Amino acid sequence: MTYSFLKGHGTQNDFVLLPDPDGSVHGPLAEARVRALCERRAGIGADGVLRVIRTSAYAADWPGGPASRLGGEWFMDYRNADGSIAEMCGNGTRVFAAYLRSHGLCGDGVTIATRAGDKILRYDGADWTVDLGPAELLGDTEVGVDGHSWKARHISMGNPHAVAFVDALADAGPLLDQPEFDRGVYPQGVNVEFVVPIAAEHVAMRVHERGVGETRSCGTGAGAVGVAAMLRDGVAAPATYTVDVPGGRLRVTWSAEQHVLLSGPAELVAAGETDL
Amino acid sequence: MTYSFLKGHGTQNDFVLLPDPDGSVHGPLAEARVRALCERRAGIGADGVLRVIRTSAYAADWPGGPASRLGGEWFMDYRNADGSIAEMCGNGTRVFAAYLRSHGLCGDGVTIATRAGDKILRYDGADWTVDLGPAELLGDTEVGVDGHSWKARHISMGNPHAVAFVDALADAGPLLDQPEFDRGVYPQGVNVEFVVPIAAEHVAMRVHERGVGETRSCGTGAGAVGVAAMLRDGVAAPATYTVDVPGGRLRVTWSAEQHVLLSGPAELVAAGETDL
Repeated sequence: MTYSFLKGHGTQNDFVLLPDPDGSVHGPLAEARVRALCERRAGIGADGVLRVIRTSAYAADWPGGPASRLGGEWFMDYRNADGSIAEMCGNGTRVFAAYLRSHGLCGDGVTIATRAGDKILRYDGADWTVDLGPAELLGDTEVGVDGHSWKARHISMGNPHAVAFVDALADAGPLLDQPEFDRGVYPQGVNVEFVVPIAAEHVAMRVHERGVGETRSCGTGAGAVGVAAMLRDGVAAPATYTVDVPGGRLRVTWSAEQHVLLSGPAELVAAGETDL
Repeated sequence: MTYSFLKGHGTQNDFVLLPDPDGSVHGPLAEARVRALCERRAGIGADGVLRVIRTSAYAADWPGGPASRLGGEWFMDYRNADGSIAEMCGNGTRVFAAYLRSHGLCGDGVTIATRAGDKILRYDGADWTVDLGPAELLGDTEVGVDGHSWKARHISMGNPHAVAFVDALADAGPLLDQPEFDRGVYPQGVNVEFVVPIAAEHVAMRVHERGVGETRSCGTGAGAVGVAAMLRDGVAAPATYTVDVPGGRLRVTWSAEQHVLLSGPAELVAAGETDL
């Protein structure tokens, strides 16, 4: 079976997109197909798959279906590279929206249905901004790498984060292994961010994603880092910080409504057919 | 500018193919474009680029042009992921031939022009076999990893190899760093193969490619390993051994003419358009 795909990325968090408006191309979308598509050498290669499907077309008995109360016309059926179902991906929403806009399926604003609810995005002519919702500030904790440990801020963006300010990003080492963290605080694991200030309202970060390892970018991680940096500087919302990730540059706004808005690029680099 | 590409691999040595029969699409083919295509996350992702161009269409003033005396109609303009020009790639020739055959540009046999001369390939209905030419047996040497060292056989397949039989493939460690070798013997560096016997006429290997690191497969490395295994077993040509690489299975024949024939799969997994 041959079907269409696109490849895109947001700050080097990369995705295979599968256009499937009425769900007839992939049906429930097999885990094995997702894995085959995401394999870097034997497949196309990506961090995950974004199936583009109308919310109304996602059958009730397919795994991880969207809630029927969602308002977004298009549902981001996001899968991790291992085939498992994922709720949300901040970088993924921007690439998903860029696809819709480039194919005339939305304008400069769109509401995308995700497993974590409706997400509102807008395009400013260069970058897409997604409203990630409120950050939950959950106190202090500690993280460690190779016997060094740092104070960290526990922030939930829907998923758990531990944000540690360090003297130099290299201090976190090669990050090949899972950083140490308090399993009492994070029984399901945690995404760990290491941060250094770069300039006024500007920080740089590295991230170790739960279950993945070090990555080039993590949207919710950048959101947590932006908020942590504002708190550290005694800056109150509304405010905007620039957050450099290894794969590029993001901006994080903490709005007057205390929502975290993530802005950044979304690139579609290839489109074609595959039979994977 | 939008242009066509395909993605394919041979035992997980993967390539972006650029159809460009008369050279008018890419001209001399810019290094920056090769790098952008091969980037795993911001691009399509590959170990290298195979431009498919008629030998007669490759202009004399383009870098690394084919010798005019070559007989193959189609020239494999191979570039490493960093954009540099490479002479030959055994796995690449199979994928190149699979492209030609699937597009009606050759049948079950073809001569491909490369910077290392004409290469003859044939298809048996499942795998492609490429004649890599003679192996040069250059005596014994030694390689080391993390303070362990092993005797190794020095074999040239056009490029230099050091083949070491080990007790277990894991003994070579994570192979993140360059193995140690005799710089007097290999002033330009060396590809190092670690090998274990699996069964009669069957070995498994890992490879550290010069200037790259550990890879999933190396065609000339598999050829050197097959020959070294036959010599170790006291087997004379003609003979065929199976050589497992991390990315799949290859067969190596040492022919009556003392040529090394490499057989293995070639997969084309996607085709499309890009503007990278």
